[in-house]
Amino acid sequence: MRIDIANAFGGEPALDRTRLEELDERVAEAHDRIAEGMENDEFGYTSLNLPETTDTAEIRDAVEPFADSEAVLTVGIGGSALGAATIADALESEVEAYFLDNVDPEHTARLLDSLDLSTTTMNVVSNSGTTAETLANFLVVREVMTAAGVDWTARTFVTTGPEGNLRELAEQHGLPALPVPEGVPGRFSVLSTVGLACAAIQGHDIDAILAGAAAERDRLSDSLFDSPAYAYGAVTYALAEAGALTNAFMPYAESLETFAEWFAQLWAESLGKDGQGQTPARALGATDQHSQLQLYRAGPRDKLVTLLRPTERADRAIPETDLEGLSYLGGSSLGTLLDAEFEATEASLAAADCPNLRVEIDEVDEHGLGELLFGMEAACICYGELAGLSTFTQPAVEWGKKAARGLLGGGEFEEADQVRGKERLVVE
Amino acid sequence: MRIDIANAFGGEPALDRTRLEELDERVAEAHDRIAEGMENDEFGYTSLNLPETTDTAEIRDAVEPFADSEAVLTVGIGGSALGAATIADALESEVEAYFLDNVDPEHTARLLDSLDLSTTTMNVVSNSGTTAETLANFLVVREVMTAAGVDWTARTFVTTGPEGNLRELAEQHGLPALPVPEGVPGRFSVLSTVGLACAAIQGHDIDAILAGAAAERDRLSDSLFDSPAYAYGAVTYALAEAGALTNAFMPYAESLETFAEWFAQLWAESLGKDGQGQTPARALGATDQHSQLQLYRAGPRDKLVTLLRPTERADRAIPETDLEGLSYLGGSSLGTLLDAEFEATEASLAAADCPNLRVEIDEVDEHGLGELLFGMEAACICYGELAGLSTFTQPAVEWGKKAARGLLGGGEFEEADQVRGKERLVVE
Repeated sequence: MRIDIANAFGGEPALDRTRLEELDERVAEAHDRIAEGMENDEFGYTSLNLPETTDTAEIRDAVEPFADSEAVLTVGIGGSALGAATIADALESEVEAYFLDNVDPEHTARLLDSLDLSTTTMNVVSNSGTTAETLANFLVVREVMTAAGVDWTARTFVTTGPEGNLRELAEQHGLPALPVPEGVPGRFSVLSTVGLACAAIQGHDIDAILAGAAAERDRLSDSLFDSPAYAYGAVTYALAEAGALTNAFMPYAESLETFAEWFAQLWAESLGKDGQGQTPARALGATDQHSQLQLYRAGPRDKLVTLLRPTERADRAIPETDLEGLSYLGGSSLGTLLDAEFEATEASLAAADCPNLRVEIDEVDEHGLGELLFGMEAACICYGELAGLSTFTQPAVEWGKKAARGLLGGGEFEEADQVRGKERLVVE
Repeated sequence: MRIDIANAFGGEPALDRTRLEELDERVAEAHDRIAEGMENDEFGYTSLNLPETTDTAEIRDAVEPFADSEAVLTVGIGGSALGAATIADALESEVEAYFLDNVDPEHTARLLDSLDLSTTTMNVVSNSGTTAETLANFLVVREVMTAAGVDWTARTFVTTGPEGNLRELAEQHGLPALPVPEGVPGRFSVLSTVGLACAAIQGHDIDAILAGAAAERDRLSDSLFDSPAYAYGAVTYALAEAGALTNAFMPYAESLETFAEWFAQLWAESLGKDGQGQTPARALGATDQHSQLQLYRAGPRDKLVTLLRPTERADRAIPETDLEGLSYLGGSSLGTLLDAEFEATEASLAAADCPNLRVEIDEVDEHGLGELLFGMEAACICYGELAGLSTFTQPAVEWGKKAARGLLGGGEFEEADQVRGKERLVVE
């Protein structure tokens, strides 16, 4: 992963090179703290040890019974699904990957209708084994499998913590069960069993993903000017301090669209606390130049834009044409056009004083993806250290969980009473 | 479309009922201006006349030769594709809809490899007929069709303005050609030929979409308290004035995920100018409660959240279970769970002083979709009037277009020189 930070300076919100050099001393302290956390396997920090601690042989063994799968269906929500989805959407495979990561009944019905469940493997992922959305979906899929004459116990494995419903279910029915690593929050779990089991079934080289992650870990150092991950974390932090409360994250590759979603969860849930944090706004290049660029260039000065691309990709020639005014396209290629748009957008943001960062990997392959995933995790943790945040918790989501549980009759919660007492002012 | 604005008040950014009542006088003026613009078919405003002026018979005639299609491939970018994609993703059809709205060579190759082009209809959409991305993709698809032995002229129609490459191409090869209505910017074109031709091939009732839009138009009035569209536009404007520079737009229906993208273009490109505008951050309920909610509740107070749902949908029972602690789910349904999460999230935002708005339609069907599309367009125009913006232009995107064209050898542009002169500060 390479970061070009030249366009971070001199715009609005304002950042200059001197300010960043001052910040670099604090990056050294953050690096010490991160290294200590890794060394001691502390909660959260241990996520950065996954390139070494993840047992890929264990994953391959667990999925070996499902080698004949034509599809893999991950049932999980949030960090239990998004890492696997990110890899699945980035890399091509003949084994299709599907996800039930919501409880929309119409979507669930359509998806299950479209699948041949006799050749589909279900992976149910929940650390606690009690996540309502995930367990509800599991119960529905199990019923549909049974109704279709499919032995669900032969087509299901679980990824879960040491105790709870899913663990018991696995023991009761002899299902393969992968452990969720201890001390790794869901949004940091992509490089573990949680993110890699689906990839293994799809035939991806999960060791190469971890090798890419390890290469990025080896680039961590006590200066942001030597470490792409810390450069990204420190510059985004410094710009946020200066008023960039939105980080528009814009990959120029359709295959990385889900990566932008994964990034959005990582960034929002880790850093959105104590009145701080940056809103990740997902966009896609070049498409969203025709949608969001007007705002980024001419709207409020509360933004930075992250532009991400692979520097190599399979290209496609544009046929010669005699269409008027378009001869310049003929003989060029879609990749050349896309790169020109990337660089033009980057420069157009700079010309409009909108700070922007360029992130590049060589290719969207296992290694490049490993670099990106690890790099953005380390960047996020670095930002959290600099901002003094509790990066690995998500206390603000508990309120809604209790309220929903109360509404559904799963216990007495005063939060549910507040929902029931909602005022209304309806315009219709 | 119904808007519940009760949770807009009393949070941070701050808004109270008195302020909104004062604003209502300006809403009356905005309504007069909008009605005048509609009356005189002025640029942009005439978009709101589309429920009456769109000739659905003309659309049905143009697509009639393609009644046998198993798939429809729209080649366009920005507003030339997003409206059609919004309808396609919202409504079920046996005719698949695909979109080439980017110039990613790997994505294009994968998509074309997966399609049976002999039963696919291509719709090339560009008002000017010169959009580089669209024409490049058209040239590629035409070549692939020809290589596959498919007569592209028998499987293609265009949607374009009165002049330009696509119009000439249609005349030269006898392709059906639909007109792009005059005075309608791309992001406001979903209720015209541009958005509805694909829907017609998919077998959707395009008259019902327009009827839904007309019903919403009939609710426009000189008070925001009587018009859902103006209520949405005025309240989001008032909150933006108070500091809500981000509008997190969160449908609770997978089928409306693309609608959120459409909204993001409408909002960003129309209102992001003169240092004003609100960044649309796309999210999806319930999934993104596990991703973004922490930030919305506990991060900077620069946000409002829009929660959107249909009040009716096909539901799915959750099977009974003896799993520990989950018996409360058994006998319930996925829809009940989703609604509980919707209401719990809404209340949890209010409890954290985060302003939020509830938008509801009866069902995700043609009529409901028509209401939503028209309603949000009128809301956007209302916001633009209140903010004194030039809602229908997008001047800030021209810089990058010229730069890209210059880089590709399509002419001399000083913007391209600025791209070539970019400074670098690379951390690797």
